[in-house]
Amino acid sequence: MLTVRRLDIADARSILAGAARHAEEIGVPMCSAVVDEAGVLIAFERLDGGKVSSVGIAIDKAFTAGAARNTTAFYGDESRPGSPGWRIQGTNGGRFSTIAGGVPVVVDGQVVGGIGVSSGTADQDVEVAEAALAHFLREAGITPEA
Amino acid sequence: MLTVRRLDIADARSILAGAARHAEEIGVPMCSAVVDEAGVLIAFERLDGGKVSSVGIAIDKAFTAGAARNTTAFYGDESRPGSPGWRIQGTNGGRFSTIAGGVPVVVDGQVVGGIGVSSGTADQDVEVAEAALAHFLREAGITPEA
Amino acid sequence: MLTVRRLDIADARSILAGAARHAEEIGVPMCSAVVDEAGVLIAFERLDGGKVSSVGIAIDKAFTAGAARNTTAFYGDESRPGSPGWRIQGTNGGRFSTIAGGVPVVVDGQVVGGIGVSSGTADQDVEVAEAALAHFLREAGITPEA
Amino acid sequence: MLTVRRLDIADARSILAGAARHAEEIGVPMCSAVVDEAGVLIAFERLDGGKVSSVGIAIDKAFTAGAARNTTAFYGDESRPGSPGWRIQGTNGGRFSTIAGGVPVVVDGQVVGGIGVSSGTADQDVEVAEAALAHFLREAGITPEA
Repeated sequence: MLTVRRLDIADARSILAGAARHAEEIGVPMCSAVVDEAGVLIAFERLDGGKVSSVGIAIDKAFTAGAARNTTAFYGDESRPGSPGWRIQGTNGGRFSTIAGGVPVVVDGQVVGGIGVSSGTADQDVEVAEAALAHFLREAGITPEA
Repeated sequence: MLTVRRLDIADARSILAGAARHAEEIGVPMCSAVVDEAGVLIAFERLDGGKVSSVGIAIDKAFTAGAARNTTAFYGDESRPGSPGWRIQGTNGGRFSTIAGGVPVVVDGQVVGGIGVSSGTADQDVEVAEAALAHFLREAGITPEA
Repeated sequence: MLTVRRLDIADARSILAGAARHAEEIGVPMCSAVVDEAGVLIAFERLDGGKVSSVGIAIDKAFTAGAARNTTAFYGDESRPGSPGWRIQGTNGGRFSTIAGGVPVVVDGQVVGGIGVSSGTADQDVEVAEAALAHFLREAGITPEA
Repeated sequence: MLTVRRLDIADARSILAGAARHAEEIGVPMCSAVVDEAGVLIAFERLDGGKVSSVGIAIDKAFTAGAARNTTAFYGDESRPGSPGWRIQGTNGGRFSTIAGGVPVVVDGQVVGGIGVSSGTADQDVEVAEAALAHFLREAGITPEA
């Protein structure tokens, strides 16, 4: 039998609160999603004005970061034409995302969940996802990993 | 040009808080979803222990209640073999739900969103959805409609 | 943070060995699948002569038993016309199965995975799934739960 | 009437055992799938720690190698922009994979099945797939083909 750790609902609410706060600071109404280490959705918020088309993208980014255990930006680099992982986007029934804005949540060297943000530019999405992660780690008293 | 009213993120948070409170009271960890009047997801929470298979069901119930402007229990009745809505389940790319636990949010005679709850029995799902709606209306100072 | 227990690969191999042994005893070449508590596939076998159309059905039964935490036979009863869960089949992107032959794996009161079997009659599928579960529990020295 | 040769369950178990052994040697918990010459799944294993997002990718790589009778790396080359197979990825209901890590099993000049591996880098996936194939051929006393 395996024993695994994963984000709980209180962790997910902390992450969404961090995402909302940073999204408001930069003035971009985001869609933000939090999944557990199996890629299953725990919590989601679309701020007022968040794009309809970003609901699914945010959830897919979070799925990818949690289930494939790396940033979606990493998979974006890995999937350029000629790269080994080219065409990984769209696998998993279309849910594998290679668009920047998905980041795994790593605690004690283990991926315990994923965050996905969408509605701004790729840079804004990444910035909000990282701010949400930093906010959660700070609230939980966890030292960020490299 | 049309002007439409719809739930905002503060309303959705109030609904999810009401759902979580009632779910805890009855001891059933629920998946709860809130959509706007276009059926688009605003917010979602899976409480600790909520079923993996209920994530999509809760979102589909909310979609159906908001977009088709009636309870999913109503559509369940309407879709019995021989009834006029027979086979409406599964339309809309599989998202139309006829399982009880989806309720529309009605304000001033207009559907402004939908709530979907899943993880318990059908009766428990309906009870939590209605408690979430009542909690929101109370907090917002809105008189419930019949 | 949550801590959850789930089947590991050794557990899954034990379950598949138990399924294969019983399938051979009754002379029905089965498709058997094992998932973890999030419904994610760990291991699968189609014995020589197992039906092509049963590959997906076995995997879906296992998904449902693990993710929705009950037998697929239970959900079959719950989803008869007029019952509250009617039409739950086909949710979750078509993966929710209400065909008998899926059983959850319960240890210390927690669902840690699911087993799905398909290729025989419904009775044969259930029989093999239960034999596979019993074989695993016996090998692991775990007392079966009611 | 045609008579076709295809991998049986004993062959598939040998392939998965070879994959697991090599995966452990290089320290990468892999998802490995084996299909027959019709592309239909015979057996699958996700080792402890294998990525959730690799379950479907491994199965799709095996499907492609068995059904399209070449390595997925070959189809990756063939499907570069401007190449004749451009856009073949994603055909077959999304199951055609052009990500390296899928290899056909060839015996006496005939494709009798396919192997797909996913969870590591593309190079690691290919290495484990080839080690699994070599292990099977050695156990079965079959001389590898060029």
